[in-house]
Amino acid sequence: MKVICARCGKERESMEVRCKRCGGPFKVDLEDLPLSKNMRENFPYLEKWISLGEWNTPLIMEGKIMYKLDFLNPTGSYKDRGSVTLISYLKQKGITSISEDSSGNAGASIAAYGSAAGMSVKIFVPSSARGAKLRQIEAYGSKVIKVDGSREDVSRAAESSGSYYASHVLQPFFRDGIRSLAYELARQAQKIDEVFIPTSAGTLLLGLFEGFRHLTSQGIIRDIPKLIAVQTEQVMPVCSKLNGVQYSPPEKVTSLADALVSTNPFLLKEMIDILKKYGECVVVNEDEILSSWRELARKGLYVEYSSATTLAALKKQGSEGFSVLLLTGSGLKIG
Amino acid sequence: MKVICARCGKERESMEVRCKRCGGPFKVDLEDLPLSKNMRENFPYLEKWISLGEWNTPLIMEGKIMYKLDFLNPTGSYKDRGSVTLISYLKQKGITSISEDSSGNAGASIAAYGSAAGMSVKIFVPSSARGAKLRQIEAYGSKVIKVDGSREDVSRAAESSGSYYASHVLQPFFRDGIRSLAYELARQAQKIDEVFIPTSAGTLLLGLFEGFRHLTSQGIIRDIPKLIAVQTEQVMPVCSKLNGVQYSPPEKVTSLADALVSTNPFLLKEMIDILKKYGECVVVNEDEILSSWRELARKGLYVEYSSATTLAALKKQGSEGFSVLLLTGSGLKIG
Ligand SMILES: Cc1ncc(COP(=O)(O)O)c(C=O)c1O
Ligand SMILES: Cc1ncc(COP(=O)(O)O)c(C=O)c1O
Ligand SMILES: [Zn+2]
Ligand SMILES: [Zn+2]
Repeated sequence: MKVICARCGKERESMEVRCKRCGGPFKVDLEDLPLSKNMRENFPYLEKWISLGEWNTPLIMEGKIMYKLDFLNPTGSYKDRGSVTLISYLKQKGITSISEDSSGNAGASIAAYGSAAGMSVKIFVPSSARGAKLRQIEAYGSKVIKVDGSREDVSRAAESSGSYYASHVLQPFFRDGIRSLAYELARQAQKIDEVFIPTSAGTLLLGLFEGFRHLTSQGIIRDIPKLIAVQTEQVMPVCSKLNGVQYSPPEKVTSLADALVSTNPFLLKEMIDILKKYGECVVVNEDEILSSWRELARKGLYVEYSSATTLAALKKQGSEGFSVLLLTGSGLKIG
Repeated sequence: MKVICARCGKERESMEVRCKRCGGPFKVDLEDLPLSKNMRENFPYLEKWISLGEWNTPLIMEGKIMYKLDFLNPTGSYKDRGSVTLISYLKQKGITSISEDSSGNAGASIAAYGSAAGMSVKIFVPSSARGAKLRQIEAYGSKVIKVDGSREDVSRAAESSGSYYASHVLQPFFRDGIRSLAYELARQAQKIDEVFIPTSAGTLLLGLFEGFRHLTSQGIIRDIPKLIAVQTEQVMPVCSKLNGVQYSPPEKVTSLADALVSTNPFLLKEMIDILKKYGECVVVNEDEILSSWRELARKGLYVEYSSATTLAALKKQGSEGFSVLLLTGSGLKIG
């Protein structure tokens, strides 16, 4: 499988994290990969899977709205879709010690799969981190390292830790695992007109897009559904750029949607390119998030606030045809 | 579908909670129900399902040990297997207002499905209840009613609340939904010699047994696997009775395994009858629970302590052939 720079097309030489020519992010090039009904065959670069029972999450339907319960992945968030492919790949490459920066779902997911693969795992977090996700990361046996300073300081510490930097944002084999979501949706739904996607670093949006593109290129679906990125008033770099709206992030993000915190996403250009052609970006506020969260819970869907942004966006936007809401994180992670 | 008293065989007249003749628990009589590959057809009394994406949880294998990830049911525990059938049935019967007593997984599960069915739900809990499960129950929009006094006082309050008493312990259509677990295991595993079952009120053990019995009566499996009930040193009425071991419960249960609290289970006789013929009962202590919990988490399996009792029992007991551990509740419910 070829891995190329998403910006200049240069091929990855080995296990480097960014393109050596332009600094851009890598992506897995699917070329003419035939689509298989056997999900794992769509990821032919993996010989042995470090699996925790990820993928194949339920889709439930109510009228023309479909809820994709991706919080029922093994660590309680959609991130497991990417962790399984990334960690299985790294294991294959003989890597035994990894680092990652995230105090949230990505950290928990990488921690779980890293441990399951027998790796030594260091998770770098802001010194202010606490709560259910941090307890979860620690339970998996990872070393948690608290870093003072900005979010960028945390990333830098993780990247220069001496262990292999298994960044969920930069590693192409993390994003690539998220293609699985598109295949499942295409199998589970009769018809999809639009998908609401809570968006922060962009791995979910970009991974899902690659899956849909693959499905269209192989003739399984005719069109890529409209991709609706959802952001919060506090953190809306994608919507700002796409819609040409002025915005500056707050000093400290205090939104209920505490998983949507990428004020300066590395993958911004890639997201904008896709959304220009296939989608749009919707901003929701705190009241809308809270009331949508309540509404979901009263339907029996207990998710984290960040996931409730999707219903908030649908209510704001009105729905066009058949809509999928990606419910990405578990309500049990609150607190 | 006939519903009969498990003790005297009298048929249920209407929606009463206990047998009018002997006070015993009801059970669904499968008679010659043919087994269907379509899971729902095995529950022919349901016309419309109030589904939240329950069942079909992953089974992962490591050597001869299989982990059934039942904590990946929608509310984070195996209870959803029974809530879906009970609540769907009650909805069909026109019931709009229910009560239940549990500050734990059963309360959360009944709350979720009750809300999803549009019912008004009252959950009665001991006044000391707090933590992640209680927050979850409240999020679903149920009314939480704190009751001073013993666990029995809480049950009595729930039973006499004026709403229909949707007890997970007494209602036959709750226990009946747990048959689904046996069908899944038979489909997912090549061979099962024994199943480790964390046991408190007994609905899991009894429901699973009914499923296995159905599978044998229909010739799908030859023998019922050995059923190994697991209890804690603090709460071991089943092991005590089965093994003829002296024991008296503590004033207050402080075990890490805080879901295994039935010191005086209503279904004791039914459990003993089955275990005498098909199983055994193993007691584990706090150290064993904690170290097994750690070991599971380091494999990437983050469960509640009550579920880790299964690994503790397997390590104590030694395994005989192919073993299934039922991982019944999510680690995200801790705290
Ligand atoms: C629950 C949840 N939803 C959505 C997202 C957004 O995903 P991405 O950062 O890939 O845009 C995240 C990211 O942390 C998340 O944790
Ligand atoms: C996580 C968990 N495991 C096991 C059990 C035991 O099930 P039962 O009470 O049906 O014996 C329970 C019951 O509350 C539970 O919550
Ligand atoms: Zn480049
Ligand atoms: Zn009777």
